[in-house]
Amino acid sequence: MPGSLAYFGPAGTYTEEAAILYDPSAVLHPYNTIAAVGEAVSSLATDKGVVPIENSLEGSVTFTLDLLIRESGLSIYEEIVLPINHYLMAKEGTKEADIQVIFSHPQSLAQCREYLERRFPSAQQMASLSNSAAVSDMKESSTPAAAIAPRRAAELYNVEILEAEVQDAANNVTRFAVLAKQDHPPTGDDKTSVCFSFEKDEPGILYRSMSEFAVRNINLVKIESRPTRQSLGEYIFLIDCSGHREDPELKAALESLDQMASMLKVLGSYPRWTGKL
Amino acid sequence: MPGSLAYFGPAGTYTEEAAILYDPSAVLHPYNTIAAVGEAVSSLATDKGVVPIENSLEGSVTFTLDLLIRESGLSIYEEIVLPINHYLMAKEGTKEADIQVIFSHPQSLAQCREYLERRFPSAQQMASLSNSAAVSDMKESSTPAAAIAPRRAAELYNVEILEAEVQDAANNVTRFAVLAKQDHPPTGDDKTSVCFSFEKDEPGILYRSMSEFAVRNINLVKIESRPTRQSLGEYIFLIDCSGHREDPELKAALESLDQMASMLKVLGSYPRWTGKL
Repeated sequence: MPGSLAYFGPAGTYTEEAAILYDPSAVLHPYNTIAAVGEAVSSLATDKGVVPIENSLEGSVTFTLDLLIRESGLSIYEEIVLPINHYLMAKEGTKEADIQVIFSHPQSLAQCREYLERRFPSAQQMASLSNSAAVSDMKESSTPAAAIAPRRAAELYNVEILEAEVQDAANNVTRFAVLAKQDHPPTGDDKTSVCFSFEKDEPGILYRSMSEFAVRNINLVKIESRPTRQSLGEYIFLIDCSGHREDPELKAALESLDQMASMLKVLGSYPRWTGKL
Repeated sequence: MPGSLAYFGPAGTYTEEAAILYDPSAVLHPYNTIAAVGEAVSSLATDKGVVPIENSLEGSVTFTLDLLIRESGLSIYEEIVLPINHYLMAKEGTKEADIQVIFSHPQSLAQCREYLERRFPSAQQMASLSNSAAVSDMKESSTPAAAIAPRRAAELYNVEILEAEVQDAANNVTRFAVLAKQDHPPTGDDKTSVCFSFEKDEPGILYRSMSEFAVRNINLVKIESRPTRQSLGEYIFLIDCSGHREDPELKAALESLDQMASMLKVLGSYPRWTGKL
């Protein structure tokens, strides 16, 4: 029986691309918000769920981090890294010279700013609610229009690709998390994501907590502090490190850290992305 | 002579509010992009510039961090922390019951999602390029419409506020940076922002670099790793710590860190925000 896979939709977005890549045979269920994907997984409405977690240009996807920090019964089961390629697309027969309006999500318009200024200096830029909505807005436009969206949206909406890879920066990649009720069994080449915070902001406490990793020679892949939402000055720390939470060294580090922290949560141990599934 | 102040515009945004609060007598110059504000300051077209740097819900403003990392001749001179209050506004005489369309920037629509679902379940949500553009889109709408935007936008566009503070989360605050050619002289209650990276990702190197702060009892206020844009696995580390870069202890820590890092840049020392200017 094919698995069921929730994803942060609508269809035609980069997250749908990641979901299809992850499990081409799964039954896909788009959800409107990242929180709804989490709810689908934790309530067992679907087996797993795919959400973006980090982009090389924009940084972390805070909705996803906050969901993982807050919700119990939700773990990172796998990670997927995809290049983000924006495509310029239009209704069949549209000539580039005629294009007066260009639709996209404001973030994608910003990522293609230099391209748009160079190639379409007099076209009006219009905001859409998602990259996928941009294609439907473009199709309904009475003035000659184009949209910036993923390749997948051109297939879904049956429109023509005018130009590929129109983003300004060459290294635009997004890391997606596959969420499940439990995390992944050890594979020998794993990563672990963990978050923690402290009762008081004493000098050196983050340093002392990091020493638990350093003395055991555990490499920290990423570190980030997120405001707690209570106030801008209080932080939750998020660490990605190498290894699985069941590895004896990492297990000992997490136990020591748990003694020091007022809150500690393992967000999941999962295979390190190596470019293929 | 009043100073000149660039800001990330257009008029009617939260950044304009911060700029007016920072210097009510300054001549304000809106710029379309965060990079253009940086350019205005580094080329001396304006004395200073105001840009958002961190939001309590959304995290860091990566465009601003990347600008500070990349550009020389640009420092953080001051920080300002403002509560972000979204207002629902409409053309005079519009009745709430008649509203069919609600315009805002997609990020603001997301921050008011629960409010909109509860109060306007059947209204269509429309994306605008900025909160300020949302008000002008709303004014041009032929169907009865509202916009979600800062209070300042209602003044500028002469529209009516229907409801104040319509955001879902109570603690939505944004930290703004005032940029200048040089950073601020010591005041005795300062913060310093610094970024650095390493040639190689050796286990423990970030920990050893943090020890330079810890052994000198310098408190780390914030730590963050940003992808280098070369690849998702390589990071630039950003640290906010207490103290001024001219304080002897912090100066010594930065000198030691400079020995270890392949790149180190002080983004600025500036007075810690205490709630007033």
